[in-house]
Amino acid sequence: MRDFSSSTQALALNTATLGHNMPGKGFGWSTEALIDNCAELGFSGITFWRQEFSQHQNLDSVGRAVRGAGMSVSGLCRSPFFCGPFAPDVQQVKDDFKLAIDQTAELQAECLVILTGGVPTGTKGITAGWGLIESILAEAAEYAAQSGVKLALEPLHPMYGGDRSCIVTVKDALTICEHVGAKNLGIAVDVYHVWWDSQLEASLKGTDKVFSFHLCDWLAETKDLLLDRGMMGDGVADIPEIRRIVEDVAGYQGLSEIEIFSEYWWSQHPRKVLETCVERFKGC
Amino acid sequence: MRDFSSSTQALALNTATLGHNMPGKGFGWSTEALIDNCAELGFSGITFWRQEFSQHQNLDSVGRAVRGAGMSVSGLCRSPFFCGPFAPDVQQVKDDFKLAIDQTAELQAECLVILTGGVPTGTKGITAGWGLIESILAEAAEYAAQSGVKLALEPLHPMYGGDRSCIVTVKDALTICEHVGAKNLGIAVDVYHVWWDSQLEASLKGTDKVFSFHLCDWLAETKDLLLDRGMMGDGVADIPEIRRIVEDVAGYQGLSEIEIFSEYWWSQHPRKVLETCVERFKGC
Repeated sequence: MRDFSSSTQALALNTATLGHNMPGKGFGWSTEALIDNCAELGFSGITFWRQEFSQHQNLDSVGRAVRGAGMSVSGLCRSPFFCGPFAPDVQQVKDDFKLAIDQTAELQAECLVILTGGVPTGTKGITAGWGLIESILAEAAEYAAQSGVKLALEPLHPMYGGDRSCIVTVKDALTICEHVGAKNLGIAVDVYHVWWDSQLEASLKGTDKVFSFHLCDWLAETKDLLLDRGMMGDGVADIPEIRRIVEDVAGYQGLSEIEIFSEYWWSQHPRKVLETCVERFKGC
Repeated sequence: MRDFSSSTQALALNTATLGHNMPGKGFGWSTEALIDNCAELGFSGITFWRQEFSQHQNLDSVGRAVRGAGMSVSGLCRSPFFCGPFAPDVQQVKDDFKLAIDQTAELQAECLVILTGGVPTGTKGITAGWGLIESILAEAAEYAAQSGVKLALEPLHPMYGGDRSCIVTVKDALTICEHVGAKNLGIAVDVYHVWWDSQLEASLKGTDKVFSFHLCDWLAETKDLLLDRGMMGDGVADIPEIRRIVEDVAGYQGLSEIEIFSEYWWSQHPRKVLETCVERFKGC
């Protein structure tokens, strides 16, 4: 397990932590200001969200700017939902998935994060959509392989099972990966989504499929289903133990990306948020 | 698996479904009115909450009234929280737990429902409190055995891991039962808390520890952490499949108790709620 107390070599920022802070939103930092501030504070990577760019923007230049500042693009969020109440129709899913893969390639991002969406409308049960998900992922993984893009399927907390993801545990996500059998399909492990899982170590034993790792915390008395994630150290997740499992059991050695959806942190100045991230990262 | 379509022999009501409807609360039904309405509509059992009674009320007469109407007392909710932000100090926990066991015996209720509370304050990780929980349960189970009371440990949905229960899966609960090793300690399985668990059947294989089973549904786009449970049929839980597992895999043949915490259903007239319960029960 790596030592985070004296180096930020493994530290990355997911821009969701700043409330997708972009011109006209939040404190209105430009992409350049974001990159400058992250580099200055010692971050080693940035993960962007697609909604922060216009649809036809070529992202080569963004990727180059990040690398020019000594960092890498740790990821791009996210695929369209495949199923559940928020999913578009299947053809739109496939088209948008291809576009997301192209954008990931342009950015030279480490991976594209995949969220599946919830239980397909009109069906019942957590596994009802798994066949559909596997077929969409198989096709997308093949397309992504052509440009060397990796796909990171992220299991979400079971409270999102109905609408945002019917893949709710690391075991679920690894089962899907096994069924699809594509080299470039792996998983993203997020502290917020998995902290409660007493079977995490058993599920990750023997896998090399962790493509991405996200830091944050679970507040003991969480108040909101979406926007009340905690800064590392403020909650009840045993982050060093989860990181031990991800690194020592699953062999993950990539960036640890801070991703916090929080009304509270979004109301703070982004520079202060970044400084807090750096400080708290040391105790992870 | 039993046929629920033509008989309410297995149907019970958890009074939480009526918003703990008692004199001065909700629509203000008396215990007698509650019992009469349930009996009239064909319910076979009622589970009460302790807060619906005054602390020194002898509950013998309540139990007798329920049985006199041809029903049984399917359960009593609940033990004090042992740990987490809402738990009293350890001595208070032990005293109140004994009182709850005495009340269960007075009612001749099928079981006392156990909620453990969340991660102990000042600790981290979902299993940090398990040792404490096991020692409190071992002592309580011994005391409960003297009056023939059964304890049903209820795993809650992982979204309650921080504050209401650090036992968040059926597997977690069965692990605790195994460690404690008391004959009168089993588990309660609630559709709302377990519907998302793809490992439910594997976890319940070979056990005879299901002491209680609760019906409700998970709404696809659930809006609230506490008070947005669905009526059976309105959500995405595969209830017949869960019931198949509980009955055919774990051998449960007791009452199926409807427990719905919902602002919506609490705003409806209790008679209408009960009628809807009876109707929807047939499709479970």
